[in-house]
Amino acid sequence: MTKQIKLYYKNATCEVVGDEHGVSMEALSQLRPRISEITSRLAHQRFEGKLPYRDLPYQEENCDKIMDFTSRFAGRYDNLVVLGIGGSALGNIALQTALNNPTYNLQPTRPGPRLFVMDNVDPVQLGGLLVILEGELENTLFNVISKSGQTAETAAQFLIVRAMLKARLPQANLADHIIATTDPQSGTLRQIVEREGLTALEVPPGVGGRFSVLSDVGLFSAAMCGINIVELLEGAADMDQRVKDDELMRNPAALYAAIQWLFYQKGKNLSVMMPYSYQLKDLCDWYRQLWAESLGKAQNLKGEQVNVGPTPIKALGATDQHSQVQLYREGPNDKVITFLEVESFGRDVTIGAAGDVEELAYLSGQTMSKLLNSEKVGTEYALVQSQRPCLTVRFPEISAYTVGQFIYLFEVATSYMGELLGINTYDQPAVELGKQATFALMGREGYQEMLREIQGATRIDDDFLV
Amino acid sequence: MTKQIKLYYKNATCEVVGDEHGVSMEALSQLRPRISEITSRLAHQRFEGKLPYRDLPYQEENCDKIMDFTSRFAGRYDNLVVLGIGGSALGNIALQTALNNPTYNLQPTRPGPRLFVMDNVDPVQLGGLLVILEGELENTLFNVISKSGQTAETAAQFLIVRAMLKARLPQANLADHIIATTDPQSGTLRQIVEREGLTALEVPPGVGGRFSVLSDVGLFSAAMCGINIVELLEGAADMDQRVKDDELMRNPAALYAAIQWLFYQKGKNLSVMMPYSYQLKDLCDWYRQLWAESLGKAQNLKGEQVNVGPTPIKALGATDQHSQVQLYREGPNDKVITFLEVESFGRDVTIGAAGDVEELAYLSGQTMSKLLNSEKVGTEYALVQSQRPCLTVRFPEISAYTVGQFIYLFEVATSYMGELLGINTYDQPAVELGKQATFALMGREGYQEMLREIQGATRIDDDFLV
Repeated sequence: MTKQIKLYYKNATCEVVGDEHGVSMEALSQLRPRISEITSRLAHQRFEGKLPYRDLPYQEENCDKIMDFTSRFAGRYDNLVVLGIGGSALGNIALQTALNNPTYNLQPTRPGPRLFVMDNVDPVQLGGLLVILEGELENTLFNVISKSGQTAETAAQFLIVRAMLKARLPQANLADHIIATTDPQSGTLRQIVEREGLTALEVPPGVGGRFSVLSDVGLFSAAMCGINIVELLEGAADMDQRVKDDELMRNPAALYAAIQWLFYQKGKNLSVMMPYSYQLKDLCDWYRQLWAESLGKAQNLKGEQVNVGPTPIKALGATDQHSQVQLYREGPNDKVITFLEVESFGRDVTIGAAGDVEELAYLSGQTMSKLLNSEKVGTEYALVQSQRPCLTVRFPEISAYTVGQFIYLFEVATSYMGELLGINTYDQPAVELGKQATFALMGREGYQEMLREIQGATRIDDDFLV
Repeated sequence: MTKQIKLYYKNATCEVVGDEHGVSMEALSQLRPRISEITSRLAHQRFEGKLPYRDLPYQEENCDKIMDFTSRFAGRYDNLVVLGIGGSALGNIALQTALNNPTYNLQPTRPGPRLFVMDNVDPVQLGGLLVILEGELENTLFNVISKSGQTAETAAQFLIVRAMLKARLPQANLADHIIATTDPQSGTLRQIVEREGLTALEVPPGVGGRFSVLSDVGLFSAAMCGINIVELLEGAADMDQRVKDDELMRNPAALYAAIQWLFYQKGKNLSVMMPYSYQLKDLCDWYRQLWAESLGKAQNLKGEQVNVGPTPIKALGATDQHSQVQLYREGPNDKVITFLEVESFGRDVTIGAAGDVEELAYLSGQTMSKLLNSEKVGTEYALVQSQRPCLTVRFPEISAYTVGQFIYLFEVATSYMGELLGINTYDQPAVELGKQATFALMGREGYQEMLREIQGATRIDDDFLV
């Protein structure tokens, strides 16, 4: 339980990649007072109850409640289907990929139901899954996750699933097949919960979707699938101790944000996260939402608006060496690359004998994990030779405990980065217009005028169609 | 068969997103002579046999050969496993996701074997899959794809699979379980083919991995899984007629490249591709390799090196509206977004009754496809309101014929873009060092000196570990 993830930043410094493209120790040192001030500010915000996500690692009672639910539901269902999008889906997917076998859904035996996360409204994708589930509805539990219940995608999925259950299982109690994760007090989904008598879990007040994975939103499906959520939260609590440190050079969240911010000031506006582990790939997708939606903002500088925010990019080692590394090494030097590296994989595969194929003899008898980690070191070495700055988050192993640390580390790093950029980290004002436009286009009451405007503005003009 | 994909570019013009952030018709017009010259140059290169990928749509005989192979193998195998990485994998994955059901591998009946593409060397991912396959080896066919056979990842996978087959099926003929797709003349894998008597398909000489999907590399697994490869090539041939056009405004490949190039000149260095279709998502991953590895290059300008290349980014609608669109709309205006839109999905799902949930009444009885396409129009509308330039590739439907068009369109657009940037589109010099470094780290003969250097340069320095 004392295994800690670590941030390695030497290959991002001037010492390694040169003055033009590296971060100088002096620049970092100069940021100390500012970081110390931010650390105090975050502590104060937390004390005032304005950062409730920070307290999610400490919810023993709630964990007991989830475990109660889980034992109530466990064994009764072969399929657990999450209906949710964005922050209601990404954490669920990330935990599953990180902490269960990649073949989990295909295995004849596993610690819980198959897990499907429906995070889109594609008719072919959804239609295909529904055909599979239709014959297994009796053994299927749906978890609708939406704070308000008004998210069009999730609401549509809910209506489809409810109609299907009523048609196919007319005798069944809806509450045996649908549970909801939503606001504890108000909202459309909360009303449905009350009316239909559904079991409900909570989206904690004040916690935005992208900071909610360590709440009921992410914990329930994880627990159902046999993931140790107690260790997950203990890992987050372990990281909480580290990211409270007032000293920049000892605080990995502050340091990660400070380095990213310095690079952003230098014009490196692309932040690539590249795990050398299949299991960590969906955590990158989770991070991609966290970083983009939190930090892509209009900054108000003395009345003038400046649009800021690094663009997070996910890549996957070793696969993307054969896709993106040419660009990363020889294209514009506008990227900071954060590798995720795993010291000890839970499983290994030995490479077979090369026999008479001399050119492949060097591989014989070696392990996949050594090959994968050599690819990482080799790629980093090559990037550094071209003055491309690299960071590494090192996982001693992938476990609920280290994944909990990672999640909390990046959440707090996001808070630091938001403060450095001088923006509101926790809102997402720019997504509102698109939602409204969708309401209008779907003919929702009260949006008629907007619909006319959109139709006028979006009519296809054949002169521009080739 | 006459359904054509179209490029819509009005929302990328100054008329819609303003002079600062749009492309002007004048600038496009000024590019006409230069584009015309490039069109001639590409035609000349093709005539000289220097662009063999351009002729891949016309290979009737080869198609017959593949169909012969397919009928020889069809029905004999429950699993087809591609061992390959980068260009040897991405096209296979893209065709499968685009043209077969998303639940293909889960279905009790399907037009061919289950398809697995192993495009990484992760011990947990690969180990997990091997456990599944171990009991089904008799019904499993592996297709090793590598031009040289020296790609470390694919070579390692091959050695693992060969050893497993020899151990588990000692009586079996290796040639019944492994086929190879490789250089027709030379290389390590070609030697193995000869020695082991394996059936071999060809990586056509002069066609780089990222331009090879319409060769045996992509066609065999597609045909095995029931995809109509004749229509796929006919679609590509249809597009070939369109992208030979000398007139910029009638040539979608030239126009796409010209617009991207003009944006790149304006500092918009991020090129997002965002399909509103699950089926098209892996074509974006394919495009991401094509664009990054072809265009991320050191440009030689009068003896001085300039690092160029837009960074391709994949996103997925509607999902990423809840993840990336905040950044795209309110962050730096440094992106061009290419939507992929589908007019008619092959399947639909009707949204159930809202009953007494008034706020959701607008969804009742509508379809998923209308919702998904409304989300696209709504998001584009919102982006354009914030002066973010958008392009759309419109698919009348997703079929082998339209997917063939798409692939060929983007391959040729890449050739145009490379000419506009003044770089060599077809090489990838910057990936070499990382490959060598991996050889060294794995202890390959002849790399001892490099190994010492890398070990010195990459030793972990605890002073930079937090």
